[in-house]
Amino acid sequence: MNTLPDALLAGYRNFMSGRFSNESLRYKELAEQGQTPETMVIACCDSRAAPEIIFDTRPGEIFVVRNVANLVPPYEPDGEYHSTSAALEFAVQSLKVKHIVVLGHGRCGGIKAALDLESAPLSPGDFIGKWMSLVAPAAEAVTANAMMTSGERQTALERITIRYSIANLRSFPCVDILEKKGRLSLHGAWFDISTGELWVMDRKTGDFIRPPAE
Amino acid sequence: MNTLPDALLAGYRNFMSGRFSNESLRYKELAEQGQTPETMVIACCDSRAAPEIIFDTRPGEIFVVRNVANLVPPYEPDGEYHSTSAALEFAVQSLKVKHIVVLGHGRCGGIKAALDLESAPLSPGDFIGKWMSLVAPAAEAVTANAMMTSGERQTALERITIRYSIANLRSFPCVDILEKKGRLSLHGAWFDISTGELWVMDRKTGDFIRPPAE
Amino acid sequence: MNTLPDALLAGYRNFMSGRFSNESLRYKELAEQGQTPETMVIACCDSRAAPEIIFDTRPGEIFVVRNVANLVPPYEPDGEYHSTSAALEFAVQSLKVKHIVVLGHGRCGGIKAALDLESAPLSPGDFIGKWMSLVAPAAEAVTANAMMTSGERQTALERITIRYSIANLRSFPCVDILEKKGRLSLHGAWFDISTGELWVMDRKTGDFIRPPAE
Amino acid sequence: MNTLPDALLAGYRNFMSGRFSNESLRYKELAEQGQTPETMVIACCDSRAAPEIIFDTRPGEIFVVRNVANLVPPYEPDGEYHSTSAALEFAVQSLKVKHIVVLGHGRCGGIKAALDLESAPLSPGDFIGKWMSLVAPAAEAVTANAMMTSGERQTALERITIRYSIANLRSFPCVDILEKKGRLSLHGAWFDISTGELWVMDRKTGDFIRPPAE
Repeated sequence: MNTLPDALLAGYRNFMSGRFSNESLRYKELAEQGQTPETMVIACCDSRAAPEIIFDTRPGEIFVVRNVANLVPPYEPDGEYHSTSAALEFAVQSLKVKHIVVLGHGRCGGIKAALDLESAPLSPGDFIGKWMSLVAPAAEAVTANAMMTSGERQTALERITIRYSIANLRSFPCVDILEKKGRLSLHGAWFDISTGELWVMDRKTGDFIRPPAE
Repeated sequence: MNTLPDALLAGYRNFMSGRFSNESLRYKELAEQGQTPETMVIACCDSRAAPEIIFDTRPGEIFVVRNVANLVPPYEPDGEYHSTSAALEFAVQSLKVKHIVVLGHGRCGGIKAALDLESAPLSPGDFIGKWMSLVAPAAEAVTANAMMTSGERQTALERITIRYSIANLRSFPCVDILEKKGRLSLHGAWFDISTGELWVMDRKTGDFIRPPAE
Repeated sequence: MNTLPDALLAGYRNFMSGRFSNESLRYKELAEQGQTPETMVIACCDSRAAPEIIFDTRPGEIFVVRNVANLVPPYEPDGEYHSTSAALEFAVQSLKVKHIVVLGHGRCGGIKAALDLESAPLSPGDFIGKWMSLVAPAAEAVTANAMMTSGERQTALERITIRYSIANLRSFPCVDILEKKGRLSLHGAWFDISTGELWVMDRKTGDFIRPPAE
Repeated sequence: MNTLPDALLAGYRNFMSGRFSNESLRYKELAEQGQTPETMVIACCDSRAAPEIIFDTRPGEIFVVRNVANLVPPYEPDGEYHSTSAALEFAVQSLKVKHIVVLGHGRCGGIKAALDLESAPLSPGDFIGKWMSLVAPAAEAVTANAMMTSGERQTALERITIRYSIANLRSFPCVDILEKKGRLSLHGAWFDISTGELWVMDRKTGDFIRPPAE
């Protein structure tokens, strides 16, 4: 028995008759010549925040890691395997991307879990708990301010997390060296699901601001 | 200075005037009511194989993990953080998805690295080496067959990897239990970048076959 | 010698030949019948955030208190005179306004002073220090979070201050009683000088969100 | 629920499509470079006498305190917080304004309350009573003259109050010193709501006269 969820099969047929039909030449070239994306995007798994949609990208344009809360762990050259670090290494060393964008978003479930300091683990393995523990100190600092609303705390931690991921990117020697040589740029952005607004991180201050309209 | 790569900013403006403009009500609802995707997709970071494009999905429809070579590691409830396992736990336990699709694709750079057994690490940390070591036994078995072309070996390992990820999904107690209760279905699919063809895994045999046209 | 700064005299002549000329009847009526504004606005002295401009109001429409950082002190029926409390009493008891809007704004100098915990007083009287001490606990809580940028801390305290002022409004018995009777509504809003965006406080959560476009 | 009174929301939309649209560059600059108003205006809360309208000012041009009857209390460096003194200190010491204008107006409700010596307090806190008690001696002196009409008494006290506020401004050491050095000028003006006439105080005599037409 071979199946896919019906909605996906229907969507795939739309893709074939629509986008693939229009871009088949490009797909063929991308297959033969390999991918050469200029940008790596580190985004969240959230179903409402796909970078290909938000940035209206073409096939071959962005190399995309997606994990819960768009986290980059710190550089840890230990014996363990690290999913995100492996993708980072591949993008920087093999694909030689010129840009890395950490794309966060509002109403992030992972961030919400990180702020819910006393919640029970989702399962005995507590995988989300361990993963989000990367930003536990930030979550505690944010939670300590009882005068901010829960919505404000959530946004604050979402943005702190983007800066944290960017700081961790720089802990990887290959990123650090290439950025200093001017061959790699790091960017942060935050997407507001409700309004569609994209807020871009100011590299100097770390603030998130709206990009100019044109 | 706040910037994003020009192409992404231009793409974002297309998104706002196009798709977001048409679907703003849906985005607003998704923001207010939260996401309730029925399907989790585990896909590769490859810039040519975005699941939202291939399945022409709407916002809120699929929850997406992307790592190199769409790998699910085995269940390891140790002290370490595991990016993919965290996302899996969140999708199954918190979002209660009904389907998990492992989506592989042709010409995968991660698979190619796994097959290139004697290549030097990309960096001292060797993150890709460690990550792809999850399928090292399979890679060795494939390589041992000198009669397959390098293209055939590549496709073979891509498909073996999808089955390996699905087997590892079942090593997570929560997945195993829910699948046995009939509340969660596991799927495999493989996308041919060059032709746009989607091959779907037969659950019984593990073979990849073309879905019926309609 | 009678003088006014030249720019003000020139502006006054514009007013007389423009707006006053168009609305002279209304001014005459407002003079004879007295003012009956439905709304009181508590705003900041900032030269960039005049409520009559932001809300494009007509003469007679809003009764306006302006002090540094749009603060409402708590209800203190002691022997002292209180500028803002006097205006509040006049608006609620004498003019019987139906709405009170606390209008904050970005880049507020008073808030900045409150966050600059170790700065020297501006003068021996330290009037700004004493005035902003009303929000000193909030300023300390915000400052404690070193992971937020200075811009984010500023915005956070600006919004906390609006909620604080609204809470203090409710400490006045006349406001509390009328609000409970449904005859007086309290509102919060925050103006972004840079973009012109107005963010409106959600009464339930205290969050600040953009009002719908139409 | 997030709301603003309908009239304000409608007015805000006018502002955005009109004035802000025309002056967005100026707003952006004012946000980035901070405000540098040359003039502080101390005006009344009255809905009919907004200084930005009367002086047709541009954003960033005037720093505005508004309280009931445009009063400046005397210099009191005690332990209490003083709203108006805080704003004054900020304008003079931090913004270094060159002019301070006390702007009174006809038919002022606060002045009327001050003249109505036997009226009951508006509320148990009697905030207006305490605030207007600053000009109680003047109110008594004016009332003692039974030959003036009530309209004349009102205008008289309005103008006395402007001179009183200017005298109190000089009780602040920073104002006194800067005025003597020629770096700060104090002005008085009185606006006639009914006719739109602006009367300017002669610095020498204290009289209010019409400014020359051009």
